[in-house]
Amino acid sequence: MKIIQSIEETRRIVGQARREGQTVGLVPTMGALHEGHFSLIRRCREECDYSVVSIYVNPAQFGPGEDLKTYPRTFEADCDACREMGLDLLFAPSNREMYPRENLTWIQVEKISEHLCGASRPGFFRGVGTIVTKLFNIICPNIAYFGQKDAQQLAVIRRMVTDLNMPVEIRGCPTIREADGLALSSRNQYLTARQRQQALCLSKALNHAAKLIGNGQTNPEMITKAMEKIVREQPEAKIDYISIVDKDLLHPLPEIDQPVLIAMAVLLGSARLIDNIIVDPAQKKS
Amino acid sequence: MKIIQSIEETRRIVGQARREGQTVGLVPTMGALHEGHFSLIRRCREECDYSVVSIYVNPAQFGPGEDLKTYPRTFEADCDACREMGLDLLFAPSNREMYPRENLTWIQVEKISEHLCGASRPGFFRGVGTIVTKLFNIICPNIAYFGQKDAQQLAVIRRMVTDLNMPVEIRGCPTIREADGLALSSRNQYLTARQRQQALCLSKALNHAAKLIGNGQTNPEMITKAMEKIVREQPEAKIDYISIVDKDLLHPLPEIDQPVLIAMAVLLGSARLIDNIIVDPAQKKS
Repeated sequence: MKIIQSIEETRRIVGQARREGQTVGLVPTMGALHEGHFSLIRRCREECDYSVVSIYVNPAQFGPGEDLKTYPRTFEADCDACREMGLDLLFAPSNREMYPRENLTWIQVEKISEHLCGASRPGFFRGVGTIVTKLFNIICPNIAYFGQKDAQQLAVIRRMVTDLNMPVEIRGCPTIREADGLALSSRNQYLTARQRQQALCLSKALNHAAKLIGNGQTNPEMITKAMEKIVREQPEAKIDYISIVDKDLLHPLPEIDQPVLIAMAVLLGSARLIDNIIVDPAQKKS
Repeated sequence: MKIIQSIEETRRIVGQARREGQTVGLVPTMGALHEGHFSLIRRCREECDYSVVSIYVNPAQFGPGEDLKTYPRTFEADCDACREMGLDLLFAPSNREMYPRENLTWIQVEKISEHLCGASRPGFFRGVGTIVTKLFNIICPNIAYFGQKDAQQLAVIRRMVTDLNMPVEIRGCPTIREADGLALSSRNQYLTARQRQQALCLSKALNHAAKLIGNGQTNPEMITKAMEKIVREQPEAKIDYISIVDKDLLHPLPEIDQPVLIAMAVLLGSARLIDNIIVDPAQKKS
């Protein structure tokens, strides 16, 4: 496995693979790799001839007061894991390499970016769209892999790729969970043992919502109220949002009469945890 | 020469040329081709193995009350000219092909977009950056050609390509002028014979500015005042802006101590004409 910091060298090496007719896959990450990332990398390896992972903690997607400085960095372990999985190239640029001058060019995806996390983290999806575009332009992948865990990020990137005719296929991959239901996240490392236990309220609330819809509940407010109750039972949990939205455009829905995305963000100590589930009301409980 | 409306077919045909190792050149236009465009196309033909021209009047870069409906459309003549010049492919998509759904994704180049035409035409460079990105993603050219006549557009696109690591080289090509100095523009067609004569005030004012700088004048205000006087002599001419700015970032300069862009926009009847010149004060009149 090659570990490369330079954009030019990465471009040259991956370009060579493409010219040889190989299908190039990209898994963009911020490092601190866990089983969620590994599932993306495995799928990439299965579907592509040449597999690239990028590790870059993108400052442009962190707001003031957010966890840019403390975001977990485990580069050596990440390299070992990538090597073991048979990756071809690990692209790990410095800030200087990615932003050698003041960045003036930004990609904004209207509407989809404005709900859910976009409301709590202004500028976040502008940073995400911009860095993902930069990575696509450097690696020129045929296929890129993103986790469904970050549902809004996936929706924003899908729409960006469609609107701008980017020559890449986007694959959304299922959320990976611990045995007790907690969605894997690099930010789970911020949790104390007590908070780790309380964090189960997210998947519990989502499962409860799915059950209510399965039982015929079509009123979003009834469902979010029931979910809020589950979260509020945890002493340290603070709700950022709980929303039932259109699964592509992410706007709130007045009634559940189509497959919906149920998404939530909860603050627990210094961690901000997100989780989501897609529920189709047509698939009623049998 | 192939004339293609479909994005997918264009992608397939140009992709084939690239896979064969051919260098692909793109000249993006809004049609109504004139000698200015032809100079870009000739350069593209000289430097590239496979030459593509796009003709698309992009609604997203016209503001309310601007000339989207009346913009000259001369598609048959454009096709003939392109064929005669030995073009390989003419990409001429419909609005439905380019914007099949509401466009939510926009590219914004801060600062550079905000001066000059950006101040008079809000949203214009957002539309330009977005459509150029779409064309780049569809054609995947190695080199793309733009006229220096649209100096701010060129500066915006250069910065966009740099900031987003787009895998394309941008070539700026000299402004082509009529024998009497008028810069070629599809919008010159809007001018009456009298206005056509008055339109010479742009190139006259720019040449006068260059002469003043050649004579050692370093005060931008003195120069723009002299230029304004030249324009005001024409009864129908209304100044939109006359500015002396940094040639890359386009911010106004307090003193002329580096190569500068002198740019102007003048309203004449239903036409809004722009012109510019780059002047290096180090090259004094000998």
